[in-house]
Amino acid sequence: MSSSAAPQPSPQLFFQTINAYQQTEALKAAIELEVFTAIGEGNTTAAEIATRCKAAERGTRVLCDFLCIMGFLTKDGNRYSNTPDSAMFLDKRSPAYLGGATEFIAAETLTNNFKNFAEVVRNGGSLDTDGGTVSPDNPIWVKFARAMAPMMALPAMLLAKLVDPAADRQLNILDIAAGHGLYGIEFAKKNSQASVVALDWPNVLEVAKENARTAGVSDRYSTIAGSAFDVDYGSGYDLVLLTNFLHHFDPPTNEVLLRNVHAALAEGGRAITLEFIPNDDRITPPEGAAFSVTMLGSTPGGDAYTFRELEQMLANAGFSRSELHQLPPSIQRVVISQK
Amino acid sequence: MSSSAAPQPSPQLFFQTINAYQQTEALKAAIELEVFTAIGEGNTTAAEIATRCKAAERGTRVLCDFLCIMGFLTKDGNRYSNTPDSAMFLDKRSPAYLGGATEFIAAETLTNNFKNFAEVVRNGGSLDTDGGTVSPDNPIWVKFARAMAPMMALPAMLLAKLVDPAADRQLNILDIAAGHGLYGIEFAKKNSQASVVALDWPNVLEVAKENARTAGVSDRYSTIAGSAFDVDYGSGYDLVLLTNFLHHFDPPTNEVLLRNVHAALAEGGRAITLEFIPNDDRITPPEGAAFSVTMLGSTPGGDAYTFRELEQMLANAGFSRSELHQLPPSIQRVVISQK
Repeated sequence: MSSSAAPQPSPQLFFQTINAYQQTEALKAAIELEVFTAIGEGNTTAAEIATRCKAAERGTRVLCDFLCIMGFLTKDGNRYSNTPDSAMFLDKRSPAYLGGATEFIAAETLTNNFKNFAEVVRNGGSLDTDGGTVSPDNPIWVKFARAMAPMMALPAMLLAKLVDPAADRQLNILDIAAGHGLYGIEFAKKNSQASVVALDWPNVLEVAKENARTAGVSDRYSTIAGSAFDVDYGSGYDLVLLTNFLHHFDPPTNEVLLRNVHAALAEGGRAITLEFIPNDDRITPPEGAAFSVTMLGSTPGGDAYTFRELEQMLANAGFSRSELHQLPPSIQRVVISQK
Repeated sequence: MSSSAAPQPSPQLFFQTINAYQQTEALKAAIELEVFTAIGEGNTTAAEIATRCKAAERGTRVLCDFLCIMGFLTKDGNRYSNTPDSAMFLDKRSPAYLGGATEFIAAETLTNNFKNFAEVVRNGGSLDTDGGTVSPDNPIWVKFARAMAPMMALPAMLLAKLVDPAADRQLNILDIAAGHGLYGIEFAKKNSQASVVALDWPNVLEVAKENARTAGVSDRYSTIAGSAFDVDYGSGYDLVLLTNFLHHFDPPTNEVLLRNVHAALAEGGRAITLEFIPNDDRITPPEGAAFSVTMLGSTPGGDAYTFRELEQMLANAGFSRSELHQLPPSIQRVVISQK
């Protein structure tokens, strides 16, 4: 009878995973058709949702059942409801709506990297000979800046609170690869003595400047257009922000950049690195650790670095001390490094 | 303090799902590179696996970590191991190896159906104007017959045991859309008085005949080439097998077919329907219920039918009584219907 303790081998995970792409496509379709918004508005049967979404009832019913199976909806009899998460993040009428992020995360520029993934693994990095997503002036970053901003509002608030809790002194901030600019802007919103220099490609900086205007901090917001590896940063900064940037490059490349960051900081200044940072085992926490796959597919040498690896790069660049911080409920983590 | 009981809303499921396609591509890559076989052979570090799989170490390390996160491998220090399921189903040297099934399940003919899934939902079925996978003589079914046979060995054994437990009397069997033929062949292997007529497209029947030869039952194996909707079945059958066939068509189409099945059976004969059969809620069990999405994408009118729906079609076609049976550990179920 002892064999009853060992679970029978099952091909379940194989099937589920080989069909996992259907989950991505079904979620994209539901966002595009505004299924979550339709349900939030009170359309709850497949027939009602189909009418509101201008789709066939058969298609809508099958899609909504699949959304239940995946955990985005619940079903009672023939009536569907949004889960609290779907109501918050996927109903267009919610201020925390994230559906637009699919414009970046699910853009073909990114997903095409996975079409011949065996070859990517053989090659050890992106097959895109132009350098993947980190090629100069890649228009994907304008898309990023626009699509991902809603997702960044919360971590930006958490980061400013962690790094500048008192918000009562002058802070000169350099925001490298600012993108939407929200990380730097949040410091300026919280602290009237903070001023921000945002660095990014010229087309991306237009988005950041727009967001600075909306936040009412334009008078303390200036920009440097160009590559973070080429331009002159200036000097005397109290903070240099490196948010979701180092994961695109290999360690030697990052060390070159970090030496320039070190030089641009005033005495006592700090480099602030926000990243997906897996534990040393590289497989936990799962969400952060899995990000290394996105980097393998889309960059020549990037990775989701462990804290030890980041600490080493920062030490090699001259930083005296680095500390790891959590940023709950965000799954990203922060390294604060002292000049 | 009551709010602490309610979990904080999280975009976790959204991110996980929007990136789920990476799981499919990573698993396909691991099978193509023979990662599970390499580990089974004793290559356990990223460097050893990379050498064996002729891939970059960086790519191999990131892929193997992702396979750990997904549950296909375990990791101890820097050494990877196959899970019992991976060793059984994904190591090429295992007799139960299923990796070849990706040739069908992950074939572009199928996956392309999901590329514009919002439009499929609007349309209420496959956008393929030739009729999707059920178009006449579609070569996908030869691929199916070859790739899926290893997966069918177990359910075929379970089905023969359920339907013909004594295996001690004459059985004339019609196997409709026989594919690899394994379901009919298993009856013939178990019962020396069973003879099988297999019906399918001519190119597919070549695979079934090959399998009948291998099983040593060729002398009791004959074929009818053509469409199950057009050919003359003959008559006097004790069993008609409908394995994974009805899900491709809408109920009226199935009823036409089932009337022909009813007419071809001898008095007291039985129709045996093996299917993904969700419960009436259409969302449990999840694996069977999710199959409706594959049918929405790849057929004009197919579905994963509930037992009630199948029972109704069978009753409309003249069957006096249908009974639902489980087939553990298979996730498929069986309906046995009496003429």
